[in-house]
This record gives sequence, C-alpha cells and structure tokens, in this order.
Amino acid sequence: MTGAESLAQTLLANGVDVCFANPGTSEMHFVAALDRFPGIRCVLGLQENVVTGAADGYWRMAERPAATLLHCGPGLANGLANLHNARRAQSGIVNIVGDQATHHRALDAPLTADTDGWARGVSAWTRTATGATTVGRDAAAAVEVARQGQIATLIVPADIAWNQEGSIGQALSLPRAPKPTQHAIGNAERVLRSGQPTLLLLGGATLRGTALADAYRIALRTGARIMAQTHNARIERGCGRPSVARVPYRVDQALAELAPFQHLLLVGATPPVSFFAYPGKPGHLYPPECELHVLARPDEDGPFALEQLADALGAPRVPPADAGLDRAVPQGAPLTAFAKTIAALLPPNAVVVNEAGTCGPAIYAASHDSAPHDWLDLTGGAIGAGLPMAVGAAIAAPGRRVLSLQADGSGMYTVQALWTQARERLAVTTVVFSNRTYAILLAELAHVGAQAGPTARNMMTLSDPDISWVRLATGLGVEAARADGCEQLADLLRTSFRSSRPFLIEFCW
Amino acid sequence: MTGAESLAQTLLANGVDVCFANPGTSEMHFVAALDRFPGIRCVLGLQENVVTGAADGYWRMAERPAATLLHCGPGLANGLANLHNARRAQSGIVNIVGDQATHHRALDAPLTADTDGWARGVSAWTRTATGATTVGRDAAAAVEVARQGQIATLIVPADIAWNQEGSIGQALSLPRAPKPTQHAIGNAERVLRSGQPTLLLLGGATLRGTALADAYRIALRTGARIMAQTHNARIERGCGRPSVARVPYRVDQALAELAPFQHLLLVGATPPVSFFAYPGKPGHLYPPECELHVLARPDEDGPFALEQLADALGAPRVPPADAGLDRAVPQGAPLTAFAKTIAALLPPNAVVVNEAGTCGPAIYAASHDSAPHDWLDLTGGAIGAGLPMAVGAAIAAPGRRVLSLQADGSGMYTVQALWTQARERLAVTTVVFSNRTYAILLAELAHVGAQAGPTARNMMTLSDPDISWVRLATGLGVEAARADGCEQLADLLRTSFRSSRPFLIEFCW
Repeated sequence: MTGAESLAQTLLANGVDVCFANPGTSEMHFVAALDRFPGIRCVLGLQENVVTGAADGYWRMAERPAATLLHCGPGLANGLANLHNARRAQSGIVNIVGDQATHHRALDAPLTADTDGWARGVSAWTRTATGATTVGRDAAAAVEVARQGQIATLIVPADIAWNQEGSIGQALSLPRAPKPTQHAIGNAERVLRSGQPTLLLLGGATLRGTALADAYRIALRTGARIMAQTHNARIERGCGRPSVARVPYRVDQALAELAPFQHLLLVGATPPVSFFAYPGKPGHLYPPECELHVLARPDEDGPFALEQLADALGAPRVPPADAGLDRAVPQGAPLTAFAKTIAALLPPNAVVVNEAGTCGPAIYAASHDSAPHDWLDLTGGAIGAGLPMAVGAAIAAPGRRVLSLQADGSGMYTVQALWTQARERLAVTTVVFSNRTYAILLAELAHVGAQAGPTARNMMTLSDPDISWVRLATGLGVEAARADGCEQLADLLRTSFRSSRPFLIEFCW
Repeated sequence: MTGAESLAQTLLANGVDVCFANPGTSEMHFVAALDRFPGIRCVLGLQENVVTGAADGYWRMAERPAATLLHCGPGLANGLANLHNARRAQSGIVNIVGDQATHHRALDAPLTADTDGWARGVSAWTRTATGATTVGRDAAAAVEVARQGQIATLIVPADIAWNQEGSIGQALSLPRAPKPTQHAIGNAERVLRSGQPTLLLLGGATLRGTALADAYRIALRTGARIMAQTHNARIERGCGRPSVARVPYRVDQALAELAPFQHLLLVGATPPVSFFAYPGKPGHLYPPECELHVLARPDEDGPFALEQLADALGAPRVPPADAGLDRAVPQGAPLTAFAKTIAALLPPNAVVVNEAGTCGPAIYAASHDSAPHDWLDLTGGAIGAGLPMAVGAAIAAPGRRVLSLQADGSGMYTVQALWTQARERLAVTTVVFSNRTYAILLAELAHVGAQAGPTARNMMTLSDPDISWVRLATGLGVEAARADGCEQLADLLRTSFRSSRPFLIEFCW
C-alpha cells in the first residue's frame, strides 16, 4: 500500500468521506488512490478558496470534518482566507497539502515555498509527513484534531505519497468539549438571581437546539436578555424557536444595545469587541463598569452549562412554539421590502448562508419568524466565504434548500464556486445584491473620519463597467436571471425553490 | 500631516506613482490621502491576487516598483500566490498591508490574523510601522528594497495611518546589482577557450537588450550554446534578436537537451532542476559530470559580466539583425496551426504574457522570428498569474499591445482581472485556450506513475459544465468572441489589434 493509499483509507476508516480538492502534480497519487478505494466524494473547486470555504460550510452543517486537498504552498496560500474564517467559526477541517518530494525541496524548484509557515497562522495542528509508513498515523491524528472543531494541516511530500508500506491509522474518539466547572455555573446562578441587568451572550453550539431553548427558559425565568455574537457559525432560528438578536456590527449601535447591562455572562462567546478600531471610540463594546463572567469558554461544553444553569434556577421548560424574545427590529436594520420578501418565501428547513454585508442585517431581522432554518454568517471577516460555504453546506445537508445571500463585492472574490454548484447539481439559490459598490466601505470611510474624493470613491465603486452576474453565472453553468424589484425577486425565488438545480438571482433595486 | 498622507507623499516623492489596490476599512485614510496629493494612479482589483499579479507585471515592464494596497492578513493571504511568482521573477514591489490599529490588535477582533508571519514567506523585507512620525521613513526603506527587485512588505496599523505628525521619507539610490568578480569572468573565459561543450544558461536581465547580444556574440565566437531558464520574467525576442530556447519543462526532454555539455556557465541563472520530483528520475537536469560555473549570480550584474567576457574573448559585435542560433523547433513543441497564426500576426513591440501551460511552448517556438516583442512567463508555478500580469504590463507599457496567452484552468484562478482590464481601458488581447481540462495534469499523472480512474479524470476535467469564457468576459465588461479554428482566430486577433480596448478570444480547436 502506498502512502497515498494509506492516507485515503485512513480518512475513510475514520468517517471522513468528503474531500474538497484542487490537486496538482504532487497530489496525483492521492487522487488516483481515491479510485482504488471508493467511498470518498471528491469535489473539485476551481480556486483553493472555494475548496477551503466549502470545507467550512460542510463542517457547520455536518458537524464532522471534510478533507481538503491543496497543491503546495501557493495552493494553500490561495485558500488561507477561508481557512481563517473556518478557524473563527471553530470548523474542523483535515487540511491536506501536497508538496515537493522530501529530496526535491532543497533544490528550491519554482513552486517551492514556506508551506509549513503559511499553514501555522490558521492551523491548531501542523505536521509534515516524514514517511509512507507513518502518514496513515499522521492522518488519524489530524482527524482527531479536526473533530475538535480545529484545522489540522497535514503536509504530504510527493515521495511519501508514492512510497510503499503505508498503513491505515485509527483516530481516537476524544470528547469534543470539556465541561465547565460547577464554580462557573454557581457564579452564573448567583449573578442571575441578583436581579441586576444581565446579558447572556451566546456563541458556538449554544445557538442551536436544546441549548438555545435552555438559554430562553433562563431568560424567561430571570429577566436576563439573550443575544448572539455579531458573527456566528450557525444559528437555528425561525418560527417556533427563540428569536435571538446579534450584537450589532456598528460600534455606536452596539454600545447603545449593551449600555444597560451590569453583567455579561459569556456562554461559548468571547467579550464583544468592535470589528475595527475607530478614532475616539472604544474597542470593547460593553460599558467599563460591566462585570464579565465566563459560564463556558468557546472550547467548553456550553450546552451542558446552560442546561445545568437552567435547572439550578428552576426555570420551567417552555414549549418551543413560544418564541420571540426579541421581535423588535434592531436599530439601523429597516424591514425593507426585499427582506420581507425573502423572509416570507424561505422554505422550511432551509440553510441560509449570509455574506450580504449591507443587506444581511435587514433580512436577519425580517426572518426571525420565517420557516425554521439555519443561518450561517461570515465569521472571520475575510470576504469571499459565502458562495463556497453554500457548496459545502449543500453537500452536508442534501434535501435542504441552501439560500446564499451574497453581496456583489464579496461575491466577486470566489465567483468560481458557482461552477462547482453546477457540476455537483446542488440545490443552492444565490441572491446577489448588486448595488455595484463596496457599500460597507463607503460607510466605514465616514466612521474612520476620512474624506472621500474621486479616487477614494472610485476604489469603492464596482460600476464602470457594471458586472453582469447573470452572464457570470451562466458562463459557469448556473442558470440565472435578473430581478429589478421585489415582485420579480419573489417570482424567481419561487421558481428556484421548486427546482433541484442551482440558480442565481441578480437583484437590483 | 497624517501617517497616511506621509506614506502617500513618500511613495510619490520616490517615484512610485502606481498603486494596485483592494482596500478595506483600515486603508481608508491612505485612499483618502491619494485624493489630497494627486499623482498616484490607483487601480482597483476585485481580488488581491489580481492586485499583486498586476504589480509583478508592472515591474517586469517598467523596471521600477509599483505599490500594492491590501487589507489585513486575509487580504494579504489572497495575494500571496502572485507575490510568490513575483519573488521568483525578482520583481520589486512595495507591498503595503493595512492592519488593525495597534491598540486593537490585542482584542483579537475577527479579521485579526498573523499578517507579519504570512508576509515573511514572500518578502525580502517585512516591517510593521510603529508610529505616524516614522511611517514615511519606513516607506522609503521599503522603496529601497523594492528597487533591488525584491518584495518589501510594510504593514500599517490603522491608527498609524490616521495619527498626525507624519513626515516624508527619502529613499537612498542604491546600486541595483553588484558586479561579479574578475575571477568569475576570467574563469568563464578559460572554460570557453577550452573548446569543450559549454552552455551559457541565461536568466534575469541577461535576456534583454545588449546583454543578450553580448551572449550571442560570445556564442558565435566560441561555439558555446546559449539557453534561457525554463521560466523567465522577461525575454526580448523576435525578428532581429537572438533566438533563445528555454530549458524544457519535461524532465526527459531537458535531460536530453543538456546531456552534451561538459560545462554549464550560469549567468543570472540558477542550476536547472526539475519542476517536480518524479519517481526514479533525477532532480538536477544536467549530467552528473557536468561542471557548474557561476559567471554572475541572479543578484549580480549579469549584463556587465557578459560584456566583459565578450570583450575578453575578442568576440566581434554582430549586427542585431543577424538572429537565430536556435531556429530548430524544440522537441515536443510542434508548430501547430494556431501557434503559427499567433506568431504571424503578433504586432510589433507587443508584450506577450504567457500562462498557457500546454499551448505556450508551441507558440514560443513559432514566434522566435515574429515581430520584436517581450515574452513574460509564469515564474513561480503558482497559476493565476497571467490575466493580472497583463493588467500591470499594459499599465507599465502604454501604447504597446499586450497579448495574454491563457490556459483555461489557470485563467479561472484570477478571472476577476478582466474587469480591471475593462475599467482601465487597457489594450490587452486575451486568448484563452479552452481545452476544458487541466491538460498538464493529465500528462503529469502519467509521469509520476499514477493510474487515472474516473475520480482522477473528473478532477482534471473542466467540462460538465463547460465554461463559457465569452460570457465570463462580457459579464466583466470585456468584449469577447469565440474562435472555433485558426481562421476565426486570425480574424478576431486582427480586429482586436486594431482596437485600443481589451478583447478576449475563447479559442476552441
């Protein structure tokens, strides 16, 4: 058995059966091994940020890791931005990077680069395989790390893939998250019983299922408020589930929202900070006198903590149909017509992938009582995550409609993902909000106190020439149409939701 | 004066007047400063690998650095692959990366990443600015490094851009390349006078102008052969110039070509090695008994060395019209009809940007006596360089036609560059060789001894769905048409060469 064969079989033996790939010469033996040992679905992306973003989306919905297959240092580099987003989402990925043969590295051939150095910035675990006999064991170790919601990068030199005497590795079944201490739970109970204004700030797995229901009954019992972080890997929401507002992106709004609280109880969340620094504004979004308490760290078992806490408080279990703590529309997110249209038509059990920077908040607000759905956000701020994440989410959740809400500026980063949606015949409906600007930057310009002249405005304008998303999509094999208003948008959404193929709507308003 | 203003003025005062940019919030003050101090042409790219690839192409034609403007670690990451190529081309770039404010970094906001760590893999010089008062000096130091043909990365935290008391820095005028020693020149003369089979392997600046003419007269005088490296930043070639073959990419061909030589004289070149390792094949492409001699290292003044050597050998100056040492067609590069068509129609003084992996060698061979032109290759093997390089080359060489020879697989990596070509109204003609495969990988599969089953073939096939390059181009504002044979190709090339606007030809054959 070659090293490549042992690698493929180790992945399969440990439940990793999807591989998002953009292979090159040094990965040929691994790709060939996938044919000899079938069972891994291999999905081609035309650029590596598609590959890594898809792996992120896959984890978020499947809750188990996919593998990636990248080609040498530059191939890894092309995928780093979405690995960064995946790291922020705590998405586990077995990130496999083929590289120059061990004996060839010293010759510094053109494609030779600092693969290991580039990997470390996003990986919890980085290892370069040193022999065909041990690469199976290396892969098993990578799977263990990835199962914890982390990125494990395994660099596989070409000779290690083609050499013989590989053997299959077995990953240990490690518990995913340690339990928070009873002290932390007791402290949270004391805070909540004090009656002082308290916010439960939720992150990670606490935004789903029974954990969210437990947070809700705690809030009902104590009068505390619940809120999610600004950017979340996945929230289960919609009709019959608690409605959870997110900490606003805008600093002034966030400061106003968090001003009333004397206590901030962090459950799988980190202390809220502004996305960027702005002159004369604070970086922390909570009042200086507010007390921070950690109920569960992001790597701890937040759902367990919430259940224990709710029971300790004697909070009655409420029927899940009783939803809506936060039905008020957040400031600055008007319920525009397009947001209402999308919210009204969202099919049951949809997966919403949101990279609509300017339009997303209004749709989030409007859809709090839409049909039940999952909502996936851009977590690391590296734009270009949306279209690839939709690929991975659709593969992880067959039978569910993926609605990809996409700004035009960020969509252009990874437009190649549309081709993979077509090739894999994924049930993805993409709505591109084609306002032909980096609209969020125009706002930021004012917030940092800079003046926009013609050069600055030109850097934020996507017109001249206008981009035709319909042509881009059809050029990549995805059927598409333009909607010039909400009626057309509604018609196209309905049509698309009836089809099992991908469809793109260029929305102009 | 803010730090951002001092940065902009330092660039301008030191002759850096083109900035390829994809800015974000942390770069807003710099962008705004460009309006207050006009003189820098700011060119927007819709993804960062367009930005960095354009800066590479710009240096190759302008022989002076452009600046880039990137947004935080992930923005840098998106541009690393073409920075890798630029490093291999010895292209100087002032690589400016805005980042989180110094006081905000510790808060680990979502976009915070290891910007410095990622930069080091491609940069000869990396510095994070520490104050508004000194960022001008930092920028001047970066210009000094970039003028040497290296990448200088200056990371500028947002607060340093907006703080006051900036001052303009002045870059020193350093000599670009040290002269080789007289010992090296004397040794080369001895080797050449020995009459033993000798190859002058040329790289860098020796592939242009009088240096190439000097190499040619040395070859005529001594019977030595001249050859270029496989991948070169820029070769001046065509009618009236010496014809120079490149070391073949394929290992077997390269070994056969280099087998006759007892001496290898390196002039601005490195010892030839194979691009990848292949089982059972050597990594060095020259015979084990061949003696290596360094006339000039890549960082030394190769043109000076060639002139000294030619004079020492008493080689007569030959009229430049007398070209063609290597008119023989290299093995494995048949003069296909499309190659002859392109070669015949190439307009005088064109700039050819070549990222046609499979089709490029035939066109190179066919065009050795085309109208005089510059030929720019992918130097670092990180695909996705071609379309962005064409942007930079066109901006550096106004009035000259850029012909961008582009494989479809690699073209998909940075297709966004077409939009910048349209916006900047660049005279770029792109020919996409639409064979709908990663054809080079199908060949590699055999060379590494792997067997292709259906999964492997699927990973190398770009059909299902077919990509329409005409739709992609027109969607991005570039006029385009499809050519289904050489006659149509010729017609479209002629039409395009008469226009000053960009045009794309999807060539299917």
